[in-house]
Amino acid sequence: MSDPRIDVIGIGNAIVDILVHADDDLLVSEGMTKGAMTLIDADEAKRLYEKTDGAIECSGGSAANTIAGLASLGGSGVFVGKVHNDRMGEVFRNDIHAIGVSYDTLPTVSGPPTATSMVLVTPDAKRTMQTFLGACVDLGPEDIDLEQIADAEITYLEGYLWDPPAAKEAFLKAADAAHQAGRKVSLSLSDPFCVDRHHEDFLDLAEHHVDILFANEEEIMTLYQVENFNDALQAVRSHCEVAALTRSEKGSVVVSGDEVHIVDAEVVDTLVDTTGAGDAYAAGLLFGLTSGRDLFTSARIGGICAAECISHLGARSNVSFKALIEEKLG
Amino acid sequence: MSDPRIDVIGIGNAIVDILVHADDDLLVSEGMTKGAMTLIDADEAKRLYEKTDGAIECSGGSAANTIAGLASLGGSGVFVGKVHNDRMGEVFRNDIHAIGVSYDTLPTVSGPPTATSMVLVTPDAKRTMQTFLGACVDLGPEDIDLEQIADAEITYLEGYLWDPPAAKEAFLKAADAAHQAGRKVSLSLSDPFCVDRHHEDFLDLAEHHVDILFANEEEIMTLYQVENFNDALQAVRSHCEVAALTRSEKGSVVVSGDEVHIVDAEVVDTLVDTTGAGDAYAAGLLFGLTSGRDLFTSARIGGICAAECISHLGARSNVSFKALIEEKLG
Repeated sequence: MSDPRIDVIGIGNAIVDILVHADDDLLVSEGMTKGAMTLIDADEAKRLYEKTDGAIECSGGSAANTIAGLASLGGSGVFVGKVHNDRMGEVFRNDIHAIGVSYDTLPTVSGPPTATSMVLVTPDAKRTMQTFLGACVDLGPEDIDLEQIADAEITYLEGYLWDPPAAKEAFLKAADAAHQAGRKVSLSLSDPFCVDRHHEDFLDLAEHHVDILFANEEEIMTLYQVENFNDALQAVRSHCEVAALTRSEKGSVVVSGDEVHIVDAEVVDTLVDTTGAGDAYAAGLLFGLTSGRDLFTSARIGGICAAECISHLGARSNVSFKALIEEKLG
Repeated sequence: MSDPRIDVIGIGNAIVDILVHADDDLLVSEGMTKGAMTLIDADEAKRLYEKTDGAIECSGGSAANTIAGLASLGGSGVFVGKVHNDRMGEVFRNDIHAIGVSYDTLPTVSGPPTATSMVLVTPDAKRTMQTFLGACVDLGPEDIDLEQIADAEITYLEGYLWDPPAAKEAFLKAADAAHQAGRKVSLSLSDPFCVDRHHEDFLDLAEHHVDILFANEEEIMTLYQVENFNDALQAVRSHCEVAALTRSEKGSVVVSGDEVHIVDAEVVDTLVDTTGAGDAYAAGLLFGLTSGRDLFTSARIGGICAAECISHLGARSNVSFKALIEEKLG
């Protein structure tokens, strides 16, 4: 097995985020599930877009955010995800290239437009997402470049990819190829409702196919259907080579075999928007591991990136994560 | 080795607490170290007693509180500690007998009076203690009943016992006797300043003589002279059979070999006074272990007792811990 030429290849939904400040009343009147990502259709996306204003458009998507974060840390990242050949597709491509991520997935020329996610940020800094998957449903196994997968130390998959049916095949193809090349497979559970939608599949993935699992407290408890965090912690220890469990203001817990580390949360002056916190954490931890750091230090890097992420609006940062880590860790 | 007839024998300073509400200004003007236990002499104790008012007197002392808590849970506990043959000594004896603890240490008839600790509770619920050790300095190896030690599943020692010189000998005699009888030895580090006063000794104790170690976050970090909690956690894992690390509102972490459990803090409606929280936690955990519970459940019992303790003024509770645990754990 040769040395990998890519640190992390991320496969996920290629989405343009539309950020909107919203109050709780709007969520209630629209019947939205606060804190969750809900899938909507094109008409509903259009209606919501017209109903809200002051929107900021930016390149998003969970795995794409993580790869962008990895690039900001100085890691070498590739993203695979499907956009349409339209204006939003261009926004996505330009943004992700600008941050130094390799992104070559062919856009669709027919079918639905580029995916968008209305991210409604409430005054408590929580985000509620209404996502129109658009062109993402056209990602399929043919978009997976087996040589690229074999060249990457870690293949990172977002749980949301389990929503569009053809993408699931791409997901499994990539995971198999990574393992055949002696590489690692990482999965983020994405959100508790996503875990609920695909419960049996995710349990099977965690137990048999994933080396590095990312989950927040609610997601891991949903996965193992347990009432307290510690029970989930004990369950996951026997399943994954590495599990990184994020707990918001309680920091994170990272486990690997006999290793169990408790990583306190970084101090955050003003909590603005939690969008992308998990993605930024994954970026930091994966960067740490692929740059040869120990697990605890890698998780600390994850925590520092997450703290930066939640201090401003939107999932991506203007700050160089690399400079930030050098400042914090020396 | 026969079955133990006593769950826990606690050896510590026999102290009557004098609880006083105080503001931060008083602490500053008196040059007191907030949150710490400071040793004072008889004159200073008298002066402080006269300066403050509205005092509540109650039986206290760290290990004594723990054994009282154990009895309240339905465990069988013995306390060993020295009072003088005076009114405060009677207060101590009556209180500890009333809760069902065996206590037969002979009182002194000459020398200093019974120990008192002025516990100054500030509006932030923190306690600052000014302790006059009094008769406690006369506890010695002759007060240790070797048969009783051999009859107890766990011999529990408070770190504060390291302050009066003769008590230290009693401490070591008891620990040796417990191990010779095939029993366990447990130590609570008491407070970070106490750890600082006896740093080398405590490190040696933790590494070589203690099976079950109790420490809060600050104490364990002081013991291992590290900057973050996780480093202390990793260090203690290799030293003690069981370590229980309390973290205030972050709950506790309990470790034993490969086992690592994260125990979230119980919800506390109103934080009144943290005096005795660590003692109550130790009571719950030791009760859990001696009644055959697993480590996680034992730590949860500790957390429930600690939460009850900090919801009222003073280290001891009027509530039956036993009823509380039955209500919470079923």
